Amino acid sequence: MSVLIVGSMAVDTVEFAGTGESFEWAAGSAVFASLAASFFGTPRVVGVVGDDFPKSMMDALRERGAELDGVEIVEGGRTFRWHGRYAPDLASRESLATHLNVFETFSPKIPASFKDSRYLLLGNIHPALQHAVLDQVSGSELVAADTMNFWIHGERERLNALLPKIDLLIINEDESRDLSGERYISRIGKALLSMGPKRVIVKQGEYGAYLFDEHGLFHAPAYPVATVVDPTGAGDSFAGTLMGYLDAQPTLDRSALRRAVVMGSAAASLCVEKYGAKGLLETTRDEIVTRAREFASLVSTD
Amino acid sequence: MSVLIVGSMAVDTVEFAGTGESFEWAAGSAVFASLAASFFGTPRVVGVVGDDFPKSMMDALRERGAELDGVEIVEGGRTFRWHGRYAPDLASRESLATHLNVFETFSPKIPASFKDSRYLLLGNIHPALQHAVLDQVSGSELVAADTMNFWIHGERERLNALLPKIDLLIINEDESRDLSGERYISRIGKALLSMGPKRVIVKQGEYGAYLFDEHGLFHAPAYPVATVVDPTGAGDSFAGTLMGYLDAQPTLDRSALRRAVVMGSAAASLCVEKYGAKGLLETTRDEIVTRAREFASLVSTD
Repeated sequence: MSVLIVGSMAVDTVEFAGTGESFEWAAGSAVFASLAASFFGTPRVVGVVGDDFPKSMMDALRERGAELDGVEIVEGGRTFRWHGRYAPDLASRESLATHLNVFETFSPKIPASFKDSRYLLLGNIHPALQHAVLDQVSGSELVAADTMNFWIHGERERLNALLPKIDLLIINEDESRDLSGERYISRIGKALLSMGPKRVIVKQGEYGAYLFDEHGLFHAPAYPVATVVDPTGAGDSFAGTLMGYLDAQPTLDRSALRRAVVMGSAAASLCVEKYGAKGLLETTRDEIVTRAREFASLVSTD
Repeated sequence: MSVLIVGSMAVDTVEFAGTGESFEWAAGSAVFASLAASFFGTPRVVGVVGDDFPKSMMDALRERGAELDGVEIVEGGRTFRWHGRYAPDLASRESLATHLNVFETFSPKIPASFKDSRYLLLGNIHPALQHAVLDQVSGSELVAADTMNFWIHGERERLNALLPKIDLLIINEDESRDLSGERYISRIGKALLSMGPKRVIVKQGEYGAYLFDEHGLFHAPAYPVATVVDPTGAGDSFAGTLMGYLDAQPTLDRSALRRAVVMGSAAASLCVEKYGAKGLLETTRDEIVTRAREFASLVSTD
């Protein structure tokens, strides 16, 4: 049982205009998603780093049971670096500098030992790389993919060709509007399903998430956190936890997927309450499960 | 059993920049809320109109069982008139003209026959008028009140004095942030409860509604409509249906209030699918109940 996760591994420098604080830390979609997947399942990580990537994060991943054979370490190379600044209300951020470094020539190589992975999560990377991963893996019970506006506008054909090959598209609400051309959630879901993926999850941030599948619609509210410190990685925490939870279930049925959405929402809420990956590094499976249980009471009319 | 509803009665001229259409019709918080309350309960309407107020709307209210003894008709007077234009995305609207007319000197007089009303809904009117109604009525099982940014900023002291006197504050998310000074929903709820009302409902438009009461938090997603034609009256439809539904319940307990929130959301979704009050005039209790039933499946992890 395992979840193959392919995505970015980065060193971010993040400034918070609201508090004036600034941090440098390990980040990236594969890092957040793998930490998150480790609460319930076994992540198998595929990515690329330079020799400047923090050893502490590699250790943290390994301690949590992540298999790291797919992490290529380029000696003398520098890790993908992003420098950005969050607005005081954390609702937007600007990129101050992006250095792709070793990520520029990243060509995902799936180790032979990873090819039987039960689940596959294609992080938000170039659609051509997502295709390249799919070409190397077959027999996964569920292939999930994330994407973003940058690829929706810049690599639309490759993205359109990917959608019929995946079982679950996980996408932000803004991006879902861009990709579908629709404004309202029920039409967004139908339009995206008609583009090929078997299921679609639209993430609405603090307003929760919608799942569209063959059983209809499911909605999970976001866990009502008292404060948000850093929204970075919330989406990857959601996707990683969802996949890890599915990895721990005997069968992938309607209820398992719906519960996985709730677990993902719970983990995302714990992620945003602390800086960087701290929210994930300092929480436990029990804490996620406890929050997930509160969802039942939150939506119960009894 | 009955719901006393005090609010505005208006004739609106509404332009829709998106479609280029323009309409003139009966509107106002008391009109929408009373139509909505009539699906389950007996609305008792208190408001003021001129003799230009459409007779067809008075007839529609009467046919639906609304008691109209509290509607003052000023002979030779003109009804409150608002002229506005919705932006193409319907997310904002601008006021082009507002004529208070007979509403300018509105002083709600509660008929003796209305004073034993089980429930009281104070529509979004000047807080001084909301106080004036409370001074005339006692013994209601639940007093609910709506308000808006205009009063939050312009009549804060009177509004603050009202809050401890009401059992349920129903408010938009933007307004709830203004009034509480908080950003995140769980803190907003706590802050507003500390200002006096026994319960608070924060309406999040297409993202649903949160109820805060002594039983904790409850969240109902919005019904996922395929399209929104006209958002006018959605909030009043929500509040009116909620109060009307409560009016039909033997006791006001945790479950009744939560189910009432779901009924309110269902009615609001039917309201916005058609122009003006058409959505309410052309729907039925059965249609509302059918939509409300879909909520159970929408949030079920089974």
